[in-house]
Amino acid sequence: MTRQAVVLLSGGLDSTTCAAQARADGFELLALTIDYNQRHRVELDAAARAAERFEARRHVVLPLDLSAFGGSALTSDMEVPKGEGEVDDSQIPSTYVPARNTVFLSVALAFAEASRARDIYIGVNALDYSGYPDCRPAFIKAFEDLAAQATKAGTEGDRFQVHTPLIDLDKAGIATLARQLGVDAGETWTCYDPVEKGGQVLHCGRCDACRLRHKGFVEAGLPDPTAYA
Amino acid sequence: MTRQAVVLLSGGLDSTTCAAQARADGFELLALTIDYNQRHRVELDAAARAAERFEARRHVVLPLDLSAFGGSALTSDMEVPKGEGEVDDSQIPSTYVPARNTVFLSVALAFAEASRARDIYIGVNALDYSGYPDCRPAFIKAFEDLAAQATKAGTEGDRFQVHTPLIDLDKAGIATLARQLGVDAGETWTCYDPVEKGGQVLHCGRCDACRLRHKGFVEAGLPDPTAYA
Repeated sequence: MTRQAVVLLSGGLDSTTCAAQARADGFELLALTIDYNQRHRVELDAAARAAERFEARRHVVLPLDLSAFGGSALTSDMEVPKGEGEVDDSQIPSTYVPARNTVFLSVALAFAEASRARDIYIGVNALDYSGYPDCRPAFIKAFEDLAAQATKAGTEGDRFQVHTPLIDLDKAGIATLARQLGVDAGETWTCYDPVEKGGQVLHCGRCDACRLRHKGFVEAGLPDPTAYA
Repeated sequence: MTRQAVVLLSGGLDSTTCAAQARADGFELLALTIDYNQRHRVELDAAARAAERFEARRHVVLPLDLSAFGGSALTSDMEVPKGEGEVDDSQIPSTYVPARNTVFLSVALAFAEASRARDIYIGVNALDYSGYPDCRPAFIKAFEDLAAQATKAGTEGDRFQVHTPLIDLDKAGIATLARQLGVDAGETWTCYDPVEKGGQVLHCGRCDACRLRHKGFVEAGLPDPTAYA
């Protein structure tokens, strides 16, 4: 039987590349998309396309709205920072969602244990998101240690492994890996602040995520297939 | 300023007693109810009553339906075990929901960090639920270690504390503590399998949770105020 892995799939370039890596590693995919706010419906469509392309065994879209708690530009009414001058790289960015990856990995663990899968893929990277505490290897290790205590399978001696194939890559490295794995980057979605124009939903080209995405393609010497507003 | 604590509040006897303990410890409550399946709406009403009685600063009811993953009698179509003969105490019970407390504590951590609270209360107990891996002190410790790595506050040196005032109590101990703290046990909800009768929703009196609950009152020498079917 083909081994299965739960893959957190947002529909962005990072998670789609991560899913492609899981396929390349020989896993059948259990795709998991967290619908954690109402801002980016266009991401959900991108996730569904990717799950279909990777022939996921299942694709679960789980509504989980952390915005009830407040505390982040991504899930509350705070302004998304734009432009070089407004982003202070020495600080934890205001787009940081408290405990987001902890929640995402916990739900992935629930999916994995219920499906008898022992592998989880998450497309975090420690370089471009150095301000996010839950994108660091120490966090991933602590989560694996927790999983060993938290589950029936773990207490019976199975080890859950959290795979982070992008953790040491910068955006250029991710763009390059995406191309190597045959990911259609133009089908992925990154923008925090989509713009509607002429009946189409476009990447804004100005938010933190768009800037990192574009910089990645440029630094990798690859064409940027993104439609910006 | 009064310190705040996030309290996971299901509306059951355990979590309501846990909330009462948090109040007795001097915290203002941020009550968090996870609406994780559609079976027990009556629990949500009990949680809302408790949040009001404890003058919670906020009460967030978060829809989070783990039944999409399957794997448990509580969140899927599997039969809830009933009667002495069907419950095998040496096994992890079929009512175990994979990674449930991991998911609940993760969401509580998100709420806590967003609210600048550093304390979380959860009404797990290691005795009567000895089969649940995520009700053990080793699990709680692993979660605190994770929280230190997972959050902005944690990496800046703050320690999140997970309080488990019921962890060493059996059901009789919980019934006694509930009485000491002035909890109206008749207002709490425990049953896994509610019964509608004459326009009322009643505890079934037969499921694992009902049996443990009743046994607790009996062993504590207290009247059982529960309305059973």
